[in-house]
Amino acid sequence: MSKLPNVTTSIFTVMSKMAAEYNAINLSQGFPNFPVDERLTDILAKLAKENVHQYTPMAGYPPLMNQIAKLIQSSYNRTINPELELLVTAGATQGIFTSILALVKEKDEVIILDPSYDSYESPVLLCNAKPIRVALNDDYTPNWETIEKACSAKSRMIIINNPHNPTGKILTESDFLELEKILSKYPDLLVLSDEVYEYITFEEKHISAHTKNFLLERCIMVSSFGKSFHITGWKIGYTAAPEHLMKEIKKVHQFLVFSVNSISQFAISEYLDVVDVNLLGKFYQEKRDYFQKLLQNSRFELKPCEGTYFQVASYANISQDDDVTFCKKLITDHGVAAIPISTFYSDHKDQKLIRFCFAKDDFTLESAAKKICNI
Amino acid sequence: MSKLPNVTTSIFTVMSKMAAEYNAINLSQGFPNFPVDERLTDILAKLAKENVHQYTPMAGYPPLMNQIAKLIQSSYNRTINPELELLVTAGATQGIFTSILALVKEKDEVIILDPSYDSYESPVLLCNAKPIRVALNDDYTPNWETIEKACSAKSRMIIINNPHNPTGKILTESDFLELEKILSKYPDLLVLSDEVYEYITFEEKHISAHTKNFLLERCIMVSSFGKSFHITGWKIGYTAAPEHLMKEIKKVHQFLVFSVNSISQFAISEYLDVVDVNLLGKFYQEKRDYFQKLLQNSRFELKPCEGTYFQVASYANISQDDDVTFCKKLITDHGVAAIPISTFYSDHKDQKLIRFCFAKDDFTLESAAKKICNI
Ligand SMILES: CSCCC(=O)C(=O)O
Ligand SMILES: CSCCC(=O)C(=O)O
Repeated sequence: MSKLPNVTTSIFTVMSKMAAEYNAINLSQGFPNFPVDERLTDILAKLAKENVHQYTPMAGYPPLMNQIAKLIQSSYNRTINPELELLVTAGATQGIFTSILALVKEKDEVIILDPSYDSYESPVLLCNAKPIRVALNDDYTPNWETIEKACSAKSRMIIINNPHNPTGKILTESDFLELEKILSKYPDLLVLSDEVYEYITFEEKHISAHTKNFLLERCIMVSSFGKSFHITGWKIGYTAAPEHLMKEIKKVHQFLVFSVNSISQFAISEYLDVVDVNLLGKFYQEKRDYFQKLLQNSRFELKPCEGTYFQVASYANISQDDDVTFCKKLITDHGVAAIPISTFYSDHKDQKLIRFCFAKDDFTLESAAKKICNI
Repeated sequence: MSKLPNVTTSIFTVMSKMAAEYNAINLSQGFPNFPVDERLTDILAKLAKENVHQYTPMAGYPPLMNQIAKLIQSSYNRTINPELELLVTAGATQGIFTSILALVKEKDEVIILDPSYDSYESPVLLCNAKPIRVALNDDYTPNWETIEKACSAKSRMIIINNPHNPTGKILTESDFLELEKILSKYPDLLVLSDEVYEYITFEEKHISAHTKNFLLERCIMVSSFGKSFHITGWKIGYTAAPEHLMKEIKKVHQFLVFSVNSISQFAISEYLDVVDVNLLGKFYQEKRDYFQKLLQNSRFELKPCEGTYFQVASYANISQDDDVTFCKKLITDHGVAAIPISTFYSDHKDQKLIRFCFAKDDFTLESAAKKICNI
């Protein structure tokens, strides 16, 4: 008897593997294919020969934690205490898992929006708690009425993902007002805010949970340098939470991983002195615009994309295959890999939608677009 | 209400921090202070400029997994299938946590020996399962009679640590015979074998769980490159288990961390081509012998040390302080940091014993010994 009977091989694994087998252009799993900033790899190469190879302190390398606090200060004008309110994690995934394990108890309910990135439900189940799925509106905005209806005294946590993977939606000031109203009625309800794409937004500015006073004492904010610095393989993220929650998160972290990769922490710490994360939005906006332009004569219908490096596209005009079948044929028959959107729905409902990752160099986007336009 | 109400700041954190504050020689937390093999840091520096910065596959970088399988083959003459039976983890700690989360269910019982390294109990509690502590004999050998008495239909797992931290004891062929007898009576009982010091044994050879056929289908073996390659900060370990267990472990791993630091995996993979792990035992045996010699005129009584890089010492002739107090005074009054052995006991019983880490360069060992001999 499995504790996670419904978990099968991750679609990201399946599609990336199949893309490699068929030598397809991989726009499925979200990772960049252009080189990392030389300033960062130079720092890393230099550090390799230094004394950076033993355990860092449990919660993180202190200079990195100070740098993260400075980054949060400059990005959101929010002061946090790095020693008491921060944790460096092995990627955002570990931050999410650890926070849920630490704070959600047996029989608690956790509200997860539908569709959602696939990492939220399993940790809830491993706590013997209950995921409650609430559908987003058709335009992928949260439906605060149904969210409120789903809340009860049993609700322990609501998980938001802003900007939202896979839909690219970002939350508005009015969303936060609605969230505040709900929280005011449920004093024990926490918010887990997955903001790994925090610096990848376009026309509208990202509104971080950090900027909201009503979340100060009850929000766990999770982010990652993987997306911000094009280093998804490094697996360095961070979690920010008020001291009373962070204390519990650190207890689990101590036994889950103890500490995280040291040289990566040293390197990111130095890099944060020279990099400007505010350039990232513009960088990816140009990629989005270019990719959309390349696809404008394709038969796919492109959905709006406000943030993240993902473009959702409808193939309803092209095929009646379900989206998993369509994605497999896209690889085998057309040489391009994408992610079926049904993956992100609890009931795996097919909507003839797929997700392309546009975190790729221009040549790759052009080659992929040529194939896509031929369909 | 905390899910881990009894967890306080780790003694390793407390002592390393206090050692730094008082500028004491740190023989507490287990990590080496000599430089990492230049061949490994050269590989790392070279790789920094290569295309190694995106997600590796979920279970690990395939060439590294092949190398680990080869290592297990050459060390223990055991053939494992890297694709089905191996997982690369963020240190052994993550391997232990993930295995317990995946395989131990609510109300299950898990047998943990006393004293034990401090990482086993919390994951069991987070599963709402019950840790059952069984005392080792006075010479730190397992008492198989009391272990058997502690077993019942509820027992899901027994955790062994071989070589044993903090006592330096290793298991014998006769121990494995006794274990086999117990397992034959409890078909659902699994063994989690923490072998992070597998290559650090001295007069007697290490007997790995890998070498035992009766464990093939029911043992999870956890190890780490941190101890074997003097890179505790890298946080790269591995877990080996039969396919039916590994399938479940991977499901949890996927949501706990997804994958682990990529460049470290690439580097260790290359390094495994040139390094000879069999030299490690001799290297540390010389350190142990040198440290013991340096302390022979001290007032401490040294316990036998068959493996690991830890030396247990009794101060019963020196002070009647409890061991935590003694360790604090050792830092403040004598400039040397050690770990109180009570930490490793479920009831924190004081036995006037402390643990020194001798994974240090000769100069550090000499300086520490001078201070220790003055007590
Ligand atoms: C961890 S693999 C998935 C990467 C990702 O964030 C995505 O493709 O959505
Ligand atoms: C992860 S900190 C503890 C290091 C260690 O293995 C020990 O000192 O016993």
